[in-house]
Amino acid sequence: MPRNQQILLDNRPQGQASASNFKLVASDTPALQDGQVLVRHHYLSLDPYMRGRMNDSKSYAAPQPLGEVMQGGTAGEVIESRDPRFAVGDKVVGFGGWQEYSVVNAAQPGTLKKVDTTQVPLSHYLGAVGMPGVTAWYGLVKIIAPKAGDTVVVSAATGAVGSAFAALAKARGCRVVGIAGGPDKCRYATEELHFDACIDYRVHADTPAMTQALKAACPDGIDGYFENVGGYILDAVMLRMNAFGRIALCGMIAGYDGAPLPMAHPALLLLNRIKMEGFIVSEHMEVWPEALAELGQLVASGQLSPRQSIAQGIAAAPEAFLGLLKGKNFGKQLVQLV
Amino acid sequence: MPRNQQILLDNRPQGQASASNFKLVASDTPALQDGQVLVRHHYLSLDPYMRGRMNDSKSYAAPQPLGEVMQGGTAGEVIESRDPRFAVGDKVVGFGGWQEYSVVNAAQPGTLKKVDTTQVPLSHYLGAVGMPGVTAWYGLVKIIAPKAGDTVVVSAATGAVGSAFAALAKARGCRVVGIAGGPDKCRYATEELHFDACIDYRVHADTPAMTQALKAACPDGIDGYFENVGGYILDAVMLRMNAFGRIALCGMIAGYDGAPLPMAHPALLLLNRIKMEGFIVSEHMEVWPEALAELGQLVASGQLSPRQSIAQGIAAAPEAFLGLLKGKNFGKQLVQLV
Repeated sequence: MPRNQQILLDNRPQGQASASNFKLVASDTPALQDGQVLVRHHYLSLDPYMRGRMNDSKSYAAPQPLGEVMQGGTAGEVIESRDPRFAVGDKVVGFGGWQEYSVVNAAQPGTLKKVDTTQVPLSHYLGAVGMPGVTAWYGLVKIIAPKAGDTVVVSAATGAVGSAFAALAKARGCRVVGIAGGPDKCRYATEELHFDACIDYRVHADTPAMTQALKAACPDGIDGYFENVGGYILDAVMLRMNAFGRIALCGMIAGYDGAPLPMAHPALLLLNRIKMEGFIVSEHMEVWPEALAELGQLVASGQLSPRQSIAQGIAAAPEAFLGLLKGKNFGKQLVQLV
Repeated sequence: MPRNQQILLDNRPQGQASASNFKLVASDTPALQDGQVLVRHHYLSLDPYMRGRMNDSKSYAAPQPLGEVMQGGTAGEVIESRDPRFAVGDKVVGFGGWQEYSVVNAAQPGTLKKVDTTQVPLSHYLGAVGMPGVTAWYGLVKIIAPKAGDTVVVSAATGAVGSAFAALAKARGCRVVGIAGGPDKCRYATEELHFDACIDYRVHADTPAMTQALKAACPDGIDGYFENVGGYILDAVMLRMNAFGRIALCGMIAGYDGAPLPMAHPALLLLNRIKMEGFIVSEHMEVWPEALAELGQLVASGQLSPRQSIAQGIAAAPEAFLGLLKGKNFGKQLVQLV
């Protein structure tokens, strides 16, 4: 019965999230019952959507309950099984949360999935070949639906979603422009993630400056935009959108702390006949097999080799998460436990 | 050679449009050349989109040129023809502009269309069975795409677009809620246009009040919204939209005078996975035959008998148009010339 360290949501943020919102506790893992599997987590996934769930407000998902283990995706190995579908040693992904071990009822559909790590490293099943990758796929393929030659733009370009977006869009013959924070990320975007250009939002820190930078990077205007951020970046992109452009709204991280985040010129949506659509990838499970097949192939072939930011040990999870919200991560943010 | 009175755009508005932007002139109609038709206008159509074209700014259509006849839809009668496709006495709709007569090159496709006035009065071809009706049809059928039982909302409810929207949505089994200015319009909406409820925006003049009124009028939330206005009404509607709601953006009349008109909470688009789409009906000519067939049938059968505001004489056009922008019209705004 291994000792299991867990991170709970202790209290809700007032404004910005902080380390004091979380609490580290430890307990013994319970004995398994029939149909249960014990998974040792190798990696925890940290994702921006978790910030939204920390608030106690109306949302598409129930808020993260107080006093319970922070929810989130996990990748690990089965170390004990009382279900015939899983064997000790199986590599699995699930939704085990911020803890070192989880007990899973194997019969419940969708809770645990075996993965093949011969060509794709286990950790990538939490990123490029997991929820973030499918998120990029859905927004690009189902909402932006680009044709070859279109110019598409993504904010948070070097994150897990943005890097998958670039590979998927390049495979479709698009010009791909990223927006990221700092010269290192921008260089990485163009040199390793195959972006055609990348704009540093720290240098272009207001709407007019960002609009000018977009004009230079997107000489033919913008046909599709994948939004992870919101705020003035969205305002600037809207000023450069072509007629009949499509905007996939995936995240508005700039508004998660509760500050009002208006859109300056919604009339541009009319003027340019733009379609803007919010989506949540977990509501489109029908696309996951097709999307994961393409993403797995891109990673296996080396066309998509996204960077990861890896924090060590369960106790490091809160600080790593807070850093992610501030853009301190470089690529997919994970916590490694084994 | 009849004398032709015309209204030109003399100068562009600074802020609000005013009568001094226009100029009334008169000249003789020219002699016809082969292939030309002389139309005497019985009705001019006044529409909110014209305000946008008075500005000299980037838009989907070229700005209305200065010193030229104000552009707009017209309905009238052929009084002289040098083209075999049209005979004297034919009732026709076209885009003749703010003048008493127009000379039309009959060969140019789409410039002039014969209409049947046995069941539908001529003037309605500028309203319910014309561009405004098709506008309502496109937004409802192609963007909102409601199913029976859905709740749909339209602003500027008693105007030409709103009244057609109500008839089309009722025919599809929707709950239809309007937003209009003043008790007379609201009573007319529910008593004669078949709206299930109508909210007076003069009584509910800010976001919280409008939100409360929408909550009462739409107990099951809002599935589809047809936007003619923008501003705080859109903000309030967004607070009551259901998940997977659709917003058809047709007009933002509140912003035509150039005042900034932000959207307060664009993150709601993401939270509720809303699709918002701007459109211009003239870019979707492929739907006109189907839409006009349904609209003509609704008018002929009496299910749609929209009210008209009719100003008399060409000189009255500017004031009637300025009144339309302030919501002083009651139903489709026309100018009658004959």
